[in-house]
Amino acid sequence: MSATDAEQAAMRRALALAQKGPRGVNPQVGAVILDASGAVLSEGWHRGAGTAHAEVDALSKLTPGAARGATAVVTLEPCNHTGRTGPCAEALIAAGVGRVVYAVDDPGRASSGGADRLRAAGVEVAAGTLAREGAALLDSWLTVQRLGRPHVTVKWAQSLDGRAAAADGTSQWITGPDARADVHRRRSEADAIVVGTGTLLADDPALTARRPDGSLYERQPVPVVLGARAIPDAAAIRSHPHPVLHRDGGNLFAEHAGTAESDSVLAELRARGVQRVFVEGGPTIASAFLRAGLADEILAYIAPTLIGAGMDGTDRPALGGLGVATIADQHHLTVASIDRLGEDLLIVAHPASTSKETV
Amino acid sequence: MSATDAEQAAMRRALALAQKGPRGVNPQVGAVILDASGAVLSEGWHRGAGTAHAEVDALSKLTPGAARGATAVVTLEPCNHTGRTGPCAEALIAAGVGRVVYAVDDPGRASSGGADRLRAAGVEVAAGTLAREGAALLDSWLTVQRLGRPHVTVKWAQSLDGRAAAADGTSQWITGPDARADVHRRRSEADAIVVGTGTLLADDPALTARRPDGSLYERQPVPVVLGARAIPDAAAIRSHPHPVLHRDGGNLFAEHAGTAESDSVLAELRARGVQRVFVEGGPTIASAFLRAGLADEILAYIAPTLIGAGMDGTDRPALGGLGVATIADQHHLTVASIDRLGEDLLIVAHPASTSKETV
Repeated sequence: MSATDAEQAAMRRALALAQKGPRGVNPQVGAVILDASGAVLSEGWHRGAGTAHAEVDALSKLTPGAARGATAVVTLEPCNHTGRTGPCAEALIAAGVGRVVYAVDDPGRASSGGADRLRAAGVEVAAGTLAREGAALLDSWLTVQRLGRPHVTVKWAQSLDGRAAAADGTSQWITGPDARADVHRRRSEADAIVVGTGTLLADDPALTARRPDGSLYERQPVPVVLGARAIPDAAAIRSHPHPVLHRDGGNLFAEHAGTAESDSVLAELRARGVQRVFVEGGPTIASAFLRAGLADEILAYIAPTLIGAGMDGTDRPALGGLGVATIADQHHLTVASIDRLGEDLLIVAHPASTSKETV
Repeated sequence: MSATDAEQAAMRRALALAQKGPRGVNPQVGAVILDASGAVLSEGWHRGAGTAHAEVDALSKLTPGAARGATAVVTLEPCNHTGRTGPCAEALIAAGVGRVVYAVDDPGRASSGGADRLRAAGVEVAAGTLAREGAALLDSWLTVQRLGRPHVTVKWAQSLDGRAAAADGTSQWITGPDARADVHRRRSEADAIVVGTGTLLADDPALTARRPDGSLYERQPVPVVLGARAIPDAAAIRSHPHPVLHRDGGNLFAEHAGTAESDSVLAELRARGVQRVFVEGGPTIASAFLRAGLADEILAYIAPTLIGAGMDGTDRPALGGLGVATIADQHHLTVASIDRLGEDLLIVAHPASTSKETV
């Protein structure tokens, strides 16, 4: 039986409740318990790792026996694993719930199977109610589940001919104010921002997400610095609202860096609840992520200028070695959009799913 | 007095007559002589350098005295200088023409002033009749007059990150068939196509303008090879419909190459009637023209790929040294258009007229 009007309304309420919880390692989930007439018995939501799941939170507000024969409306498939809180499917069965309506299937390897467990216990299950809205709410979290690591955006700025700086190293603002504003807005949507010690020492960036008027966005990404060199005491990054995470980058800089599973930095960030990583570079860091196949989204900000190499041969390309020895190995991209930002261009691209024939 | 209906009709006829002449060093010009009633007395057009100008051609078809009091309708301001044919203004005055109607002012330093000369002799002059159509007909020729040299388009293909080839030198078809078709169409609109001996020896290009089915366009650019190395006897370019022009490039490759006036290659091409030059490169040639400030139009074909440098540091950028030692010297461009050609992008740009502040 598909969801009733009352259940649909309850799902909308559950989606709103979910958003009261924090975005982090665990998904944002909301739950509403309805009686047989469709009236709300209780509500709950998940408040983050180590706290009660939404269904359990909602059940806990009822007197024993009050949920018998009730309907539980939940934004995510009730989990089937024993974490710090015990499986929700078991809690619903134990409470005597007669029907469960949920929006999004749980993609987790350890946690999924809750719907099957419920059905096996004789509970009626309706999946996919407001699934699109539910998936939109959990977008980043679902991406992390699918990739097995945070979503990675690699951003760089370059001249049309692919240079990041002139021969003497000067580079500041090769792109204009509209491009910079776009970068800051996207920083504010990330959970972590990554730079290398080279960029840190050269540019002393604050790594905050700022509006054009200089004020800070409410959300600020955690600043992450990769590289063996020390962060100076006077570095601007030390004034960031979040403490700096400084790691040597592990095997990321090796020519044959492994995938996410083996990459300690991304694994650590994921464990900290980071779902979206914004890699700002410079060239060494951006190239390392690209070389390792760890870029899910590419943002190339292109200034309408030509820089070329220096006459003495000094060259400062925006990207360094990508592990491409011969043309058949080039990294094919799918261009998602091309926009003008003031005088600059922004090309948003993704790795092409299949390699293009080179005929 | 502005042009009468009969004179406007005569101007349209003169424009059609002009197109019978060849495009080359001299402008295409047509002329029609009308009697007082607006009836056509004679017609003429210019058949190329060393032959009669259009007005003189038209006058030559009349018996002596027949042009007295007549009106001469000409697509270009009658010249005022003595070349191989004598000034047309004097010929019109000597023939007793009472009125001259023309479309486009002569921008030439040596040849202009014809209208003033006519007026000084008492001839009535109406300038600017169908000026837009006249200018469109003479577009390339007027550009050459304005620049003092042929119009130069510099074209290259690159990966998004500015590379022309992988570390091992492999590069063929980094851009796709739509981009290649666009290049060939533009080749067919040029009078000359320029490559360096490096590209010639590496790629053995035919340098013809071909349709996607492989057939030749009717118009073929003259192939020009720059560089000291010899052209192999078996080179594909030797089968080009036009004989190859092989020059060492003069001072073009010097770090401080001069402007058009001093550049022997462009001066020679201009003297041969070349109005539009298509510089195809590779990197050395493209960079040389850019460095010398000799690129009026830039075509960057961008493949949606990343190539990077080789892991051994070998780098094959699409552009080499551009004389930019520090960021303030970068070559600012104005982007005219961005188009998708299949999977590739084409960015058409021009040198920015004023330098952008680097704040």
